[in-house]
Amino acid sequence: MKIQVINPNTSRSMTASIGRAAMAVARPETEIIACCPQDGPASIEGHFDEAIAAVGVLEEVRKGVAAGVDAHVIACFGDPGLLAARELARGPVIGIAEAAFHVASLICTRFAVVTTLTRTRIIAEHLLRNYGMTEHCTSVRCVDIAVLELEALGEDLLVERIAEQALLARDQEGAGAIVLGCGGMADLPARVSERVGLPVIDGVAAAVKLAEVLGELGLGTSKHGDLAYPLAKGFAGRFGHFGM
Amino acid sequence: MKIQVINPNTSRSMTASIGRAAMAVARPETEIIACCPQDGPASIEGHFDEAIAAVGVLEEVRKGVAAGVDAHVIACFGDPGLLAARELARGPVIGIAEAAFHVASLICTRFAVVTTLTRTRIIAEHLLRNYGMTEHCTSVRCVDIAVLELEALGEDLLVERIAEQALLARDQEGAGAIVLGCGGMADLPARVSERVGLPVIDGVAAAVKLAEVLGELGLGTSKHGDLAYPLAKGFAGRFGHFGM
Amino acid sequence: MKIQVINPNTSRSMTASIGRAAMAVARPETEIIACCPQDGPASIEGHFDEAIAAVGVLEEVRKGVAAGVDAHVIACFGDPGLLAARELARGPVIGIAEAAFHVASLICTRFAVVTTLTRTRIIAEHLLRNYGMTEHCTSVRCVDIAVLELEALGEDLLVERIAEQALLARDQEGAGAIVLGCGGMADLPARVSERVGLPVIDGVAAAVKLAEVLGELGLGTSKHGDLAYPLAKGFAGRFGHFGM
Amino acid sequence: MKIQVINPNTSRSMTASIGRAAMAVARPETEIIACCPQDGPASIEGHFDEAIAAVGVLEEVRKGVAAGVDAHVIACFGDPGLLAARELARGPVIGIAEAAFHVASLICTRFAVVTTLTRTRIIAEHLLRNYGMTEHCTSVRCVDIAVLELEALGEDLLVERIAEQALLARDQEGAGAIVLGCGGMADLPARVSERVGLPVIDGVAAAVKLAEVLGELGLGTSKHGDLAYPLAKGFAGRFGHFGM
Amino acid sequence: MKIQVINPNTSRSMTASIGRAAMAVARPETEIIACCPQDGPASIEGHFDEAIAAVGVLEEVRKGVAAGVDAHVIACFGDPGLLAARELARGPVIGIAEAAFHVASLICTRFAVVTTLTRTRIIAEHLLRNYGMTEHCTSVRCVDIAVLELEALGEDLLVERIAEQALLARDQEGAGAIVLGCGGMADLPARVSERVGLPVIDGVAAAVKLAEVLGELGLGTSKHGDLAYPLAKGFAGRFGHFGM
Amino acid sequence: MKIQVINPNTSRSMTASIGRAAMAVARPETEIIACCPQDGPASIEGHFDEAIAAVGVLEEVRKGVAAGVDAHVIACFGDPGLLAARELARGPVIGIAEAAFHVASLICTRFAVVTTLTRTRIIAEHLLRNYGMTEHCTSVRCVDIAVLELEALGEDLLVERIAEQALLARDQEGAGAIVLGCGGMADLPARVSERVGLPVIDGVAAAVKLAEVLGELGLGTSKHGDLAYPLAKGFAGRFGHFGM
Repeated sequence: MKIQVINPNTSRSMTASIGRAAMAVARPETEIIACCPQDGPASIEGHFDEAIAAVGVLEEVRKGVAAGVDAHVIACFGDPGLLAARELARGPVIGIAEAAFHVASLICTRFAVVTTLTRTRIIAEHLLRNYGMTEHCTSVRCVDIAVLELEALGEDLLVERIAEQALLARDQEGAGAIVLGCGGMADLPARVSERVGLPVIDGVAAAVKLAEVLGELGLGTSKHGDLAYPLAKGFAGRFGHFGM
Repeated sequence: MKIQVINPNTSRSMTASIGRAAMAVARPETEIIACCPQDGPASIEGHFDEAIAAVGVLEEVRKGVAAGVDAHVIACFGDPGLLAARELARGPVIGIAEAAFHVASLICTRFAVVTTLTRTRIIAEHLLRNYGMTEHCTSVRCVDIAVLELEALGEDLLVERIAEQALLARDQEGAGAIVLGCGGMADLPARVSERVGLPVIDGVAAAVKLAEVLGELGLGTSKHGDLAYPLAKGFAGRFGHFGM
Repeated sequence: MKIQVINPNTSRSMTASIGRAAMAVARPETEIIACCPQDGPASIEGHFDEAIAAVGVLEEVRKGVAAGVDAHVIACFGDPGLLAARELARGPVIGIAEAAFHVASLICTRFAVVTTLTRTRIIAEHLLRNYGMTEHCTSVRCVDIAVLELEALGEDLLVERIAEQALLARDQEGAGAIVLGCGGMADLPARVSERVGLPVIDGVAAAVKLAEVLGELGLGTSKHGDLAYPLAKGFAGRFGHFGM
Repeated sequence: MKIQVINPNTSRSMTASIGRAAMAVARPETEIIACCPQDGPASIEGHFDEAIAAVGVLEEVRKGVAAGVDAHVIACFGDPGLLAARELARGPVIGIAEAAFHVASLICTRFAVVTTLTRTRIIAEHLLRNYGMTEHCTSVRCVDIAVLELEALGEDLLVERIAEQALLARDQEGAGAIVLGCGGMADLPARVSERVGLPVIDGVAAAVKLAEVLGELGLGTSKHGDLAYPLAKGFAGRFGHFGM
Repeated sequence: MKIQVINPNTSRSMTASIGRAAMAVARPETEIIACCPQDGPASIEGHFDEAIAAVGVLEEVRKGVAAGVDAHVIACFGDPGLLAARELARGPVIGIAEAAFHVASLICTRFAVVTTLTRTRIIAEHLLRNYGMTEHCTSVRCVDIAVLELEALGEDLLVERIAEQALLARDQEGAGAIVLGCGGMADLPARVSERVGLPVIDGVAAAVKLAEVLGELGLGTSKHGDLAYPLAKGFAGRFGHFGM
Repeated sequence: MKIQVINPNTSRSMTASIGRAAMAVARPETEIIACCPQDGPASIEGHFDEAIAAVGVLEEVRKGVAAGVDAHVIACFGDPGLLAARELARGPVIGIAEAAFHVASLICTRFAVVTTLTRTRIIAEHLLRNYGMTEHCTSVRCVDIAVLELEALGEDLLVERIAEQALLARDQEGAGAIVLGCGGMADLPARVSERVGLPVIDGVAAAVKLAEVLGELGLGTSKHGDLAYPLAKGFAGRFGHFGM
């Protein structure tokens, strides 16, 4: 089984790190194809970045479909372009936020999310609402570190900042598990879990495993209704290749 | 006051028709600048079309901001790119779906939406949820005519097909007003209203008027929080012009 | 276009101040007719005051209809008698709370309300729920000053008290705009906005502009269904004039 | 214990009928004082009728408090003036809609409401939402008979019309109990139940019993917060007697 | 009328205390039959305890039905086995949590719950959601005393600990009434109310009174639909007596 | 990895069939241990059956924990005893309804459920609500065949009856996938899918795969908060072995 893991931003080092996290949990027989768009933002920290990145995701999904991959993972916590990507694919398409929420809801009654910038909190809150998970989440907490500074900060300090928020969620809000709210935190669940004493879920790992599950169950995206292949039509200009 | 009315698809004739509808309701001192993206789908009938069209919307908003327009209207019933566009603009940005829903909720306790394809119903339903309007809507009904066939069908037949659904909503569900769920129906509210005996709201007209209102009240998009200008960062490839 | 702006309490000075705020934003060709009931409470600070004031609102709407006004604004933040008033009128009837909420939701993803007494907070919370706006509001905050003491306090102190709450909403809850929750604060949006650095919405201004919009769009209250004219029937005693 | 049962409309025969229904279920030691306002609509079939009737309810509650009654029942299915009445009273105030909903939810997982005019359905739906009962109700169904024609129709025909709707709710929606949605149906629960084979709840009876319960438990309206006695203030004109 | 009051845990002293609380509010002609299961946990402080205790509740309801009781009260704040018990009974079955929530919602707009262990808070929160009462509750607060230590602590200290939380709910959240969230607190409402200045509701008393009400109204559990008697089928092993 | 698949009813043939369905999707290195309680109902078709079956589930989970299994699946569509079972286990515990809902929500925007008896529909509806999935489900549909008659009916007829409902959900409600709502349908997804043209999800398969996923991710039930091991306490009578 080939799973395409798409980092929606154009950072090569984050793509590599996400690929490593994916491979670390994939089954031996699963092939992980980590990629990122050629065009788009270096990091995704708002509605605008997301809207642009969604096009890059769709370009990558299109290439993945052409290359015969079996499933697609969108490895940014806002799940940019998720429903649109599902229209393009017959195989499953999984967002890391939805994957993390679903998995977290299986092991506790209420989880907390720790993400990067306060500015992006609303994106996670909108996803919780869209996926029906609002009641299962105690809060979305932020460490207020920009995505591209996560690496520079050093893992020790980053773990500490995440743990600080996670402990508040555990002790003041009764969170039973922690969801890491950024693809750039994919290396950290074990260390944060050790520090906090709670299960910690990284969406990249969760999404790869869910993609494997759907593949093994023979389930792909429903091609009936709003997720059917896009209706054939003309596309103008630089998007002309999407048209028919 | 200059209001940029963006048709998110690339159809020139629909852009012209939307522009006419906008001008028909604009105040004499309002200048309507109707435009559409150079790049993107000829019509928007699904999540994929929307995701691609959102980029075109953002390009146009960016141009509009550079040209000093005072407000922006996104004239496709899925409100593609709305929150992203708000990050780019200091002036107000109004989607025609949200405009129509808000206006409808001021004149009746429950309205119905009549839109084009069944396939796109979920898009309207998601917007109703996102805007808090689910309870105010009796149903989203579809005439199952593709966007680009609306013109070809001829206005008489189209009015008839819309009226058919509207009357069901009125008589079986108690809808007190009808929202037309497509920018391509912007010419029809008067005729449908006459046929159905209910107020009929076109989102293009509603959005233009709300944009005027916000302008006159001196209100623009909040630049505090998630709608502040996008964080400066690099953009790669064909989106490089968005970066800093 | 004639817009009747009804202050539901019987305070002449507040009626004058609301009238000034309405005129300050009305178009030149709009005539503002500010009025208040002859009978009713001097201020509205609870469910009881509201229920009594609603009758005064209805009496005024009735007079307004007879005098041929085109639209009606109910200028108390509890929107007393709103649905009942819509039954009486063919033109639009707009409450200042609903107007402020709708406008606020167009310029930010989450707004806060700052109102007078803690006692009345539940009224605003019920309205947020009724209008589908609960998720769009971070909190309803109170300065705990009685309505009739707003004037006596002096504008400087009042602005300071409002700003104090608004800043908490901005910094602790991420509110992107502030709604002023009392007709008696209609003079203050500019000063509060300057102090707080956020857009500030006064419902009186918002409602007047929305009434103009509906008028220009040719939209009035739906007379189909529950907002149709009241069924003809007898009314006893002092309400006999409502009967037929 | 003295329970004031207020028919919010001015129909003497309906007041008598409601009084009989109340007495039929009251405990021997309970005194039922059935009354109706001197001023107000002959029947309540819309938002306007309700708003006017609420004042009559408040006048009666005020008299009841002065006369030392222990509890108050508002015997119209829209519960007009409920929260306002609670401000006036130290004893409990119970609306017949809320009473019926609460009781119904104790004996089935989903109930249906059968009320009079389609026009008033939204009032019941709003109450279901306000009381948190929306999910517990399969639908609000209407026999489309005006309140004042209920008597004229004759009990046999009326039972048949109600049963017709109730059977649809039972067989098509799985309703486990029926709530009668009008004070004018207070005599009918036994006959409808016999005809339909489901428990049938009349709100007048339910409210009287809940009032007794609260009285026996020593529980009255909370005088802390928004239901505390109205703040002392001036009332103008014909409502001057409410002021201080 | 005979009301079976079932303490779902096996503590004899708590059963006696619950029985006393029930008798204290029952009508003279009501016979209270307090009982507890022979098999099950000594106290109920989690999902597991509840699931086991539910069987004991069902055994007791079965005995109660055989003995001809008229109604059943489940006297643990998690309402264990409530819907299952309703299948067994023709008479009403009332849980003390639901009873307390319903009664509280009749005397204030928002109530708070004070219960025992933080661990069990989610149980109360789930019930609030299930019964549609989430919006009517400001918070569920915990004194963090184990159920079986409530007695040992001494009534004075216990009242103090409950009052501490209740006062926070009153002053910081605007709660208008307090619901005691444990059958083991059934003796305390008067003392807590005196200390806190709010109405205080004990679920045991509330449930007994609601059971009386339903009995007097001739209303029992709906035997149509999901609460009909269990379908006849085989039960194996120690549950063989439930089978047919 | 050892996964205990618990059929909550006592039917050996259904246990075998569920075991086969589990083994059919399990990875080669996964050991499936299918079991059912010694004590309990032969089938589960209501709240009562569920409450009794929950104890059997807990007994089996306890044995499974003692035997060192890594994860537990509860293979009845009501997920009986789910939260209680999680308290007993360190490994994950997955219900087949929740598994099916989560998986379905990854491949379509709205799914339908087809289950056995109309009587049990409310159980599925309550679970949808509890898991936040109500909005993602178009309806719960019933074939009205008792659980123990599923086998007797013959697979052809059963597939036909399920397909009939599934096609209604697809064509009238826009369902994009079908969830089979009974452990006794675990053999049928391929045949129903072929007949209906939609992805069809069986909860047993879904739950086994999710259990594998959690195991491979090193995630077990959170032992912090309400899912921590049960508090040590006495259990009386036949449940004495649960005590300490």
